[in-house]
Amino acid sequence: MGRDHHGDPLPEVRRIALFTDFGPEGIYIGQMRAVLADAGLPVFDLMNDVPAFDPRAGAYLLAALADSLPAGTLYLCVVDPGVGTGRMPLLVRHRGNWFIGPDNGLLSRLGGTVQRIDWRPERLSESFHGRDLFAPAAVRLCRGRELAVTPLDPQRPVGIGWPASLGEVVYIDHYGNAMCGLRAAGLDDAILLEAGGQRLRYARTFGEVEVGEPFWYRNSIGLVELAVNRGSAAARLGLVVGSRVTCPASAG
Amino acid sequence: MGRDHHGDPLPEVRRIALFTDFGPEGIYIGQMRAVLADAGLPVFDLMNDVPAFDPRAGAYLLAALADSLPAGTLYLCVVDPGVGTGRMPLLVRHRGNWFIGPDNGLLSRLGGTVQRIDWRPERLSESFHGRDLFAPAAVRLCRGRELAVTPLDPQRPVGIGWPASLGEVVYIDHYGNAMCGLRAAGLDDAILLEAGGQRLRYARTFGEVEVGEPFWYRNSIGLVELAVNRGSAAARLGLVVGSRVTCPASAG
Amino acid sequence: MGRDHHGDPLPEVRRIALFTDFGPEGIYIGQMRAVLADAGLPVFDLMNDVPAFDPRAGAYLLAALADSLPAGTLYLCVVDPGVGTGRMPLLVRHRGNWFIGPDNGLLSRLGGTVQRIDWRPERLSESFHGRDLFAPAAVRLCRGRELAVTPLDPQRPVGIGWPASLGEVVYIDHYGNAMCGLRAAGLDDAILLEAGGQRLRYARTFGEVEVGEPFWYRNSIGLVELAVNRGSAAARLGLVVGSRVTCPASAG
Repeated sequence: MGRDHHGDPLPEVRRIALFTDFGPEGIYIGQMRAVLADAGLPVFDLMNDVPAFDPRAGAYLLAALADSLPAGTLYLCVVDPGVGTGRMPLLVRHRGNWFIGPDNGLLSRLGGTVQRIDWRPERLSESFHGRDLFAPAAVRLCRGRELAVTPLDPQRPVGIGWPASLGEVVYIDHYGNAMCGLRAAGLDDAILLEAGGQRLRYARTFGEVEVGEPFWYRNSIGLVELAVNRGSAAARLGLVVGSRVTCPASAG
Repeated sequence: MGRDHHGDPLPEVRRIALFTDFGPEGIYIGQMRAVLADAGLPVFDLMNDVPAFDPRAGAYLLAALADSLPAGTLYLCVVDPGVGTGRMPLLVRHRGNWFIGPDNGLLSRLGGTVQRIDWRPERLSESFHGRDLFAPAAVRLCRGRELAVTPLDPQRPVGIGWPASLGEVVYIDHYGNAMCGLRAAGLDDAILLEAGGQRLRYARTFGEVEVGEPFWYRNSIGLVELAVNRGSAAARLGLVVGSRVTCPASAG
Repeated sequence: MGRDHHGDPLPEVRRIALFTDFGPEGIYIGQMRAVLADAGLPVFDLMNDVPAFDPRAGAYLLAALADSLPAGTLYLCVVDPGVGTGRMPLLVRHRGNWFIGPDNGLLSRLGGTVQRIDWRPERLSESFHGRDLFAPAAVRLCRGRELAVTPLDPQRPVGIGWPASLGEVVYIDHYGNAMCGLRAAGLDDAILLEAGGQRLRYARTFGEVEVGEPFWYRNSIGLVELAVNRGSAAARLGLVVGSRVTCPASAG
């Protein structure tokens, strides 16, 4: 167990989650895994298909996932089109979890305390801070080694002003289901949503609608999801990440 | 080590294998890995590209794989188009392995003893029993915690009546090789197989046929596989999962 | 810790890296993971998207990666179109790392000492030596069990005569960046490279060029990489693995 910059003991990290846009497998995520193999903790790929170059979509996914999974996780978050420019590396603590990633909005939907990581490795490539800076910082944190940080003004990080709930598609899964940045808890069952030029009614689960029918439901990470039973909502409604999802009316 | 419902000690689980249709990487399998990180055992992705929504194809793959790999594995099996409906969660024990998954035929080709899992978590989403029910049940089993189960009539599970050997393509790999549900042990080398309108002869291995030539062989998990040396059998023969493979005649 | 064939203690293996062309997830890599789960060490997927059937491209990638990652890694390398023919299994030691793989050039760019693996498992399939021979050999090495090997003449392995720096694309990543077999250390910033019929200038990092502009840079594993800021160099320049990259002139 390490200590933070005040000398307080850190809550225990029990597992490390990778959250990146490096794609399924491929040459980058593997190098981060190589570095993390020395952390002495289980390391697992949470998502490597966060929409590429899109820290905003990733921010809404990350916040929803962290609320749905066991506490005690260190999330290593790399969606970093600005690598090689001056953007800061951040360390965020929120609800028993840790988050390491770039200051580009990716960590802005979490809340909690935000610190700038001042520590730098001996060797730092221009293009791969995931391997050279973020992953080694995670290993230091898990191993209880010193990690120089500076507290940040909570209003300073990029993305602090983004909406709490975002009416856009933020992820399209393997089956063509479209997750939105909209928190499902605030929506009434009677609401109709509009996306791709169609109005969608609510259903509790896939089994409640006909095969081929589009609908919206509250998904397992608390977001609104547009789906088609045994079909692809993305193909059926022409949706991509960034497509608008609006609430024009209720069905009642 | 846990105990079963008779109080007998359970054979030791040494590793956990994920067998799902969640796709390569992506948002679902990562959440299951997050839960399984607490099992205290090595967790690995065996397959996440089981044909989607197709527990039948998956059943033949799973049985062949389990016979080919070291015993002492807990297989966490999620191909679950019926999630959110009333289908039962099952626990199967066979030849020193454990299998957890839905009662939709996916576990029907294994043999062994079948139990219904009665245990339920405090929080159970409608759409993601892999994360909320199957994975936590696996952790409980590995940790030796109580897991309420009820023995089932062996004739009751879905898929018990399916054929032992299935003349259909059940998987197409990264290279375009087409695995069939046919057990290779029962077929003579002289047999010609028909698929995609062509007759294929047997060859022992890729090196025995010309580049570009289609053939069938006994693959490394004991199934009949249709292949083209340094080419794609799926593209060459127009095969998809579910394509028929028949034995019209022998070459002798 | 094991001992080599001279009885000398082996340098400690701390982690096992998978380096294959088995594709992202899929049925093969999972079976290797099942075997490796018994090694008692962290096992991770370094790359499973090495260009298929292309041990030459893989050789340049592997050498560059091994130089960029922590020592003490056992690399399990399977790009093996010749499986089932007579090609030898090799064990290479270089700079504190271990490499196991087929004698088809894949391990030829590393240097170090080369040994032929003589050990054979009880059961060896014709088509999947990754699972049946290479992975169990790795487990034996990590567990300190005997592994019969024979030293080889350093000039004997396939690929020994290949060029030290190769003017071809050897990998195209998830974003469409094209890595070349060219070692970046030897090239001056003033060099223009020609690929896909266009001349590309050097830039230090993505942030230094306009969105959409193609350029070359020194990537994080020390290779020349062709890129387009926020775009795909492969699509823009029509590149595939094997495309020629030449140095026609310097910009100075």
